[in-house]
Amino acid sequence: MQQVTGGVTAPAGFQAAGIHCGVKAGAQTEKDLAMILSAQECSAAATYTMNRVKAAPIYVTMEHLENGSAWGVIVNSGNANACAPMGQENAKAMCEYAAEATGRDASDFVVASTGVIGQTLNIAAIKKGMPALAQALSPDGADAAASAIMTTDTVKKECAVTCDIGGKTVTIGAMAKGSGMIHPNMGTMLCFVTTDCAIMPDVLTEALHEVVPRTFNRVTVDGDTSTNDMCVVLANGMAGNEQIEWKDDKYSAFTAALCAVCEALARAIAADGEGASHLLTCCVHHARSEESAERLAMSVIGSPLVKSAMFGADANWGRVLCAMGYSKAPFRPEFVDVKFCSAAGEIPVCTMGTGLEFDEDAAKRILSEREIIIDINLNEGGQAAVCWGCDLTYDYVKINGDYRT
Amino acid sequence: MQQVTGGVTAPAGFQAAGIHCGVKAGAQTEKDLAMILSAQECSAAATYTMNRVKAAPIYVTMEHLENGSAWGVIVNSGNANACAPMGQENAKAMCEYAAEATGRDASDFVVASTGVIGQTLNIAAIKKGMPALAQALSPDGADAAASAIMTTDTVKKECAVTCDIGGKTVTIGAMAKGSGMIHPNMGTMLCFVTTDCAIMPDVLTEALHEVVPRTFNRVTVDGDTSTNDMCVVLANGMAGNEQIEWKDDKYSAFTAALCAVCEALARAIAADGEGASHLLTCCVHHARSEESAERLAMSVIGSPLVKSAMFGADANWGRVLCAMGYSKAPFRPEFVDVKFCSAAGEIPVCTMGTGLEFDEDAAKRILSEREIIIDINLNEGGQAAVCWGCDLTYDYVKINGDYRT
Repeated sequence: MQQVTGGVTAPAGFQAAGIHCGVKAGAQTEKDLAMILSAQECSAAATYTMNRVKAAPIYVTMEHLENGSAWGVIVNSGNANACAPMGQENAKAMCEYAAEATGRDASDFVVASTGVIGQTLNIAAIKKGMPALAQALSPDGADAAASAIMTTDTVKKECAVTCDIGGKTVTIGAMAKGSGMIHPNMGTMLCFVTTDCAIMPDVLTEALHEVVPRTFNRVTVDGDTSTNDMCVVLANGMAGNEQIEWKDDKYSAFTAALCAVCEALARAIAADGEGASHLLTCCVHHARSEESAERLAMSVIGSPLVKSAMFGADANWGRVLCAMGYSKAPFRPEFVDVKFCSAAGEIPVCTMGTGLEFDEDAAKRILSEREIIIDINLNEGGQAAVCWGCDLTYDYVKINGDYRT
Repeated sequence: MQQVTGGVTAPAGFQAAGIHCGVKAGAQTEKDLAMILSAQECSAAATYTMNRVKAAPIYVTMEHLENGSAWGVIVNSGNANACAPMGQENAKAMCEYAAEATGRDASDFVVASTGVIGQTLNIAAIKKGMPALAQALSPDGADAAASAIMTTDTVKKECAVTCDIGGKTVTIGAMAKGSGMIHPNMGTMLCFVTTDCAIMPDVLTEALHEVVPRTFNRVTVDGDTSTNDMCVVLANGMAGNEQIEWKDDKYSAFTAALCAVCEALARAIAADGEGASHLLTCCVHHARSEESAERLAMSVIGSPLVKSAMFGADANWGRVLCAMGYSKAPFRPEFVDVKFCSAAGEIPVCTMGTGLEFDEDAAKRILSEREIIIDINLNEGGQAAVCWGCDLTYDYVKINGDYRT
């Protein structure tokens, strides 16, 4: 497996585009409408938000993917089309306009929206922009598409890898958005993965369901889970590999590559959490089960007090233990070791549940790096889990204090 | 029932004191050690933090209250004595010094600590200060004691009510602390309630377990649950009422008064949440069950996105629905009405799950009041729950970014 440049158009047979159509009120440079289109029919799989309040495009996409296939994706930013008047009609209309502009069927499209909740989608702007969007489709369009799905994101999120499957080079590309409202149970963001791998739809679904819980569902920015989130994979088979039909070695190779792509994007989303100044990685190891390791790591990475301490470069490990304590996962506090690590070194701060004397200046130096690892040894077993998040900063409050204006 | 002035010394037979002994590094004016003492043996009941990591004083108090009786409380601020070397020894020593200074037994005392986690308690300072503390005990000492348990609290929290029980006037007084780390499952703060009511220990326990889930457990400031929290009631019987021995009308009258005291303090804790500029009350009504109403209200009041919007006086009701959606409580999004209310008026923003046109200036005016009510009608049944919280502000991040220094 090898990381390569590019995003959703890295695999063979995919084109993409992103333009400004007017859903976002801002300048022409603020892209707000993106399309991905394959040259051949794709096997398709998706995971969706667990929020009981689901945006209209989620339901439309679920319907369109019932047959396990799709040709493309149409997505807007600037408006979530959630709890909004005419939600279903407008989500369906987006697919119809995309179909007209590309000569496909409405049901060939995955549809997604991201942005403010509860306001009517400006479907007229989308209709008007659609021909230009289709016109702009290009094998070099990945960057434009990745830009067009950003909301409060500060950087585009793209990734691509290649891997060998049965002697053929298969490419997986992806783009994602999401900075606030990132929390487990479904990636709780938008992620579109493309690949030229030949793989059956149900096997693709299996792979995605193996990968998402270990990547996107292990990211938390603020504990809120959005109404709109989905992760979709389209596989057009144009790499020419023998089709993956069951859980053999080829399946394992594909799943490992898919996991690498999703992990890279999950980390990028955590690092770009709203207002974030630090990427936090919490690794809980020597646990009796992966499940409790994950629960403990998510509780630590989600604690506002831990997040605030990391913003202040304060080695306040007591808050780490406290967050473990209310996670409801079983563990023995009196066995726990805690270390803070970064590119500047590592510092043990707690052993067997009790504080260690440590050099505050050294701790400050370690916690001043951009990437911080909170390393927790439960000294209980052989399982582990890694979760990602970010610190809580003034800017988070600022960004979210008046998002709609 | 009637609200009266005063705190823990309002009921007959209670004295209290608060002094600076040196656990807090600051000035002499920064009180850090408090005592409450009854003139007669008390029935005692308590609820404790559900955090798996419990501070040493929690275990010592559990042991001392096993017989259902106590005479007093000894409590320090400035250090939580949690995950700290010598935790149990120091918590026991606090009781021993208190006993020596007052001529009682160590096991007559409830012991509590609040402050930073993981650092050794300065027990020498407590020992040295104890005689002066006992000397300072007075029927007018409630304010001093309430001051001595503050950490990041900006105001003292005290409350007292009287009620008639079988023809006798019974008084209930209380003091509390807690601003960050306030979350359900146990009050997750310190609260000490005194009363001159005559009531059996097990009936007192019943009353407390009825009241705490509807008051302190319905407050959230940041979702973190502390290692140290407890709510204790001491009842010395000096009002001379016939002892309450079962769940009769007298029990109901007492429980209602206890609930009023705890609700007032719960609201005070929410309003004084770290960095808070607004007290948020979320009322979910016309629910099918109180349990799901509570779960929905807690999810809304705990959402960082809702809290940030309230800080920005932004009527972003989409985030309210979104937070309800990920609460895991059953409800029908398409039935939900949402209103924002305050002293400046009320404004409906969502009906039957869909946004309403509303006057943004009017909404801004309503959300600029100190107290804001998020009113949610599920249109499903006859149950309701009210929860309290506060907005998320720059100051929360500031206070918690470097708490230890």
